[in-house]
Amino acid sequence: MRRVTFGLANSLDNFIARKDHGVDWLLWGKEAASVTAEFWKTIDTVLMGRKTYEVALKNGMTSYPGVKNFVFSRTIRESPDKNVEVISEDAAGFVRKLKRQNGQGIGVIGGGQLAKSLFEANLIDEMVLNIHPVLLGAGIPLFLPMKRQVDLVLVECKTFKNGCVLVKYRLKH
Amino acid sequence: MRRVTFGLANSLDNFIARKDHGVDWLLWGKEAASVTAEFWKTIDTVLMGRKTYEVALKNGMTSYPGVKNFVFSRTIRESPDKNVEVISEDAAGFVRKLKRQNGQGIGVIGGGQLAKSLFEANLIDEMVLNIHPVLLGAGIPLFLPMKRQVDLVLVECKTFKNGCVLVKYRLKH
Repeated sequence: MRRVTFGLANSLDNFIARKDHGVDWLLWGKEAASVTAEFWKTIDTVLMGRKTYEVALKNGMTSYPGVKNFVFSRTIRESPDKNVEVISEDAAGFVRKLKRQNGQGIGVIGGGQLAKSLFEANLIDEMVLNIHPVLLGAGIPLFLPMKRQVDLVLVECKTFKNGCVLVKYRLKH
Repeated sequence: MRRVTFGLANSLDNFIARKDHGVDWLLWGKEAASVTAEFWKTIDTVLMGRKTYEVALKNGMTSYPGVKNFVFSRTIRESPDKNVEVISEDAAGFVRKLKRQNGQGIGVIGGGQLAKSLFEANLIDEMVLNIHPVLLGAGIPLFLPMKRQVDLVLVECKTFKNGCVLVKYRLKH
């Protein structure tokens, strides 16, 4: 079974972007870059929600290179990028099938609705957050209200020189 | 100037209690107990919002012993406990004066409205969170929307055997 990892950078008050989608508050550094690079070696597929993908498009990014890109949407039909497949069926059902196929790890990018449906359907295996030293006060939330509690096992915790805290959890199934 | 510390246990999705105020998900252990005991030695005053205090009363706890207790409320006039002073004036104004008085550290307990007004007024100096390995999915939020961004400096981060992550931040003023 392929491992599904939900990974993101967030503020301590759990926003992933400002209300205008601004991410000027994100801190970059060699440590985060190295963790990210290592992670990308383990996956061959990324999953995005429609809103996350629209923000990526606005920023001139039509797909993540070197991996298969799936975007979940009932409103858009196709992407301008051949490397992106738009999925209109139920995300949980699709991901359940995807996990059974042969392949490497699967990364989930963006919070909100997609993460919520995958958490609720118990399809996420691992979560990595890069918690930034800031309270934004307002923005796009990382977690939406969920129908169920998700129990976690802390696998790793490390601090970066810039004050970020990287936490990695395994989800109890 | 006395140091004001905002300290709490939270879920990874930033709830401090279930919707029914339940805290059955809190993990206790020697490590958290030791940190808490050390912290209590450094303060002589605790501040609570009205809602936090009402939950404490329901649980049969009328005040924190050994420290001065202030509860902020415009609806209740006094507490059944002589060790508690109910403050009806603006919390920020009151805490600004309190910080200038002689004394030890001041602890802020409970999230919500009191924390929000003190964060917004730039009166909190330090924040300690004991991040629990769980997504509750719903509950009483730790942070309310705020009018301003609060920048933090990571001072300490340690992990407990039970999977909790204790983070301590200094607030940039």
